[in-house]
Amino acid sequence: MNVEYINPFIEATLNVLKTMSRTEAMPGKPYLKKDQKALGDVSAVIGLTGEANGTISISFPEQSIAAVVSRMFGEPVSELEGELADAVGEISNMISGQARQQLEKTGKLLHGSIPSVIVGKNHQISHFTTYPVIAVPFETPEGGFTIEVCIEE
Amino acid sequence: MNVEYINPFIEATLNVLKTMSRTEAMPGKPYLKKDQKALGDVSAVIGLTGEANGTISISFPEQSIAAVVSRMFGEPVSELEGELADAVGEISNMISGQARQQLEKTGKLLHGSIPSVIVGKNHQISHFTTYPVIAVPFETPEGGFTIEVCIEE
Repeated sequence: MNVEYINPFIEATLNVLKTMSRTEAMPGKPYLKKDQKALGDVSAVIGLTGEANGTISISFPEQSIAAVVSRMFGEPVSELEGELADAVGEISNMISGQARQQLEKTGKLLHGSIPSVIVGKNHQISHFTTYPVIAVPFETPEGGFTIEVCIEE
Repeated sequence: MNVEYINPFIEATLNVLKTMSRTEAMPGKPYLKKDQKALGDVSAVIGLTGEANGTISISFPEQSIAAVVSRMFGEPVSELEGELADAVGEISNMISGQARQQLEKTGKLLHGSIPSVIVGKNHQISHFTTYPVIAVPFETPEGGFTIEVCIEE
């Protein structure tokens, strides 16, 4: 996978969290996801098709996402299901949309599926592909989260 | 969503489990997924795009999927990660492929993304859509599992 495809997802993540929830996230160094386990409590997965098949996911520990969504709504949110799962669906949809818009400008047309949101303590996501999966860790004042991108080409 | 879109997924599920693992599954009555929670220990999610956006997921409790995959491999498999997660990715990919092939014959062209596999005790999946999500419960000799289909149209 061309690593240039990663930057639009990093920029979209920073932008969406900033505009939707006034969260200043700091991206860490992207790495090739091999045996590293990315555990999360709330995740969203969006399938990509078009010029290549792919998938993106974003996984939050409970503490990070509760703070992000509480700022989004302007009131404390602690229940992981319901509103919070919807908010993660919306956040992931906006990240996917903005990143794909940037990729389209460079001639790469990808379509995004409906986001699916997974809620459950310490779940782990893997992607069924023989291609590399790139993971990008982020830090926020309340904790970290990770995005994973795989585009088969 | 036209309920006729559900049958190809039911048939593909029965066929894939039978041919891959000699598992005779029995489909139950499809229902509209509203507040019902589908809890699983291992799930796969595949995004759909094309003439409509959508998503399909399949969620297994540990006991059911361990039996399915043990028959597939011809030896006992109990570790939920690794081989078993890969097997669920493969099963979901084959179900998606066979169902989309059937739908294409009726003039409905859908593309499937890379499957993402989620492992974690009692996780819950929701789909970020305002359209109906249809769930179909299945029974096997070792326990149940559920598929969920949403096609936005």
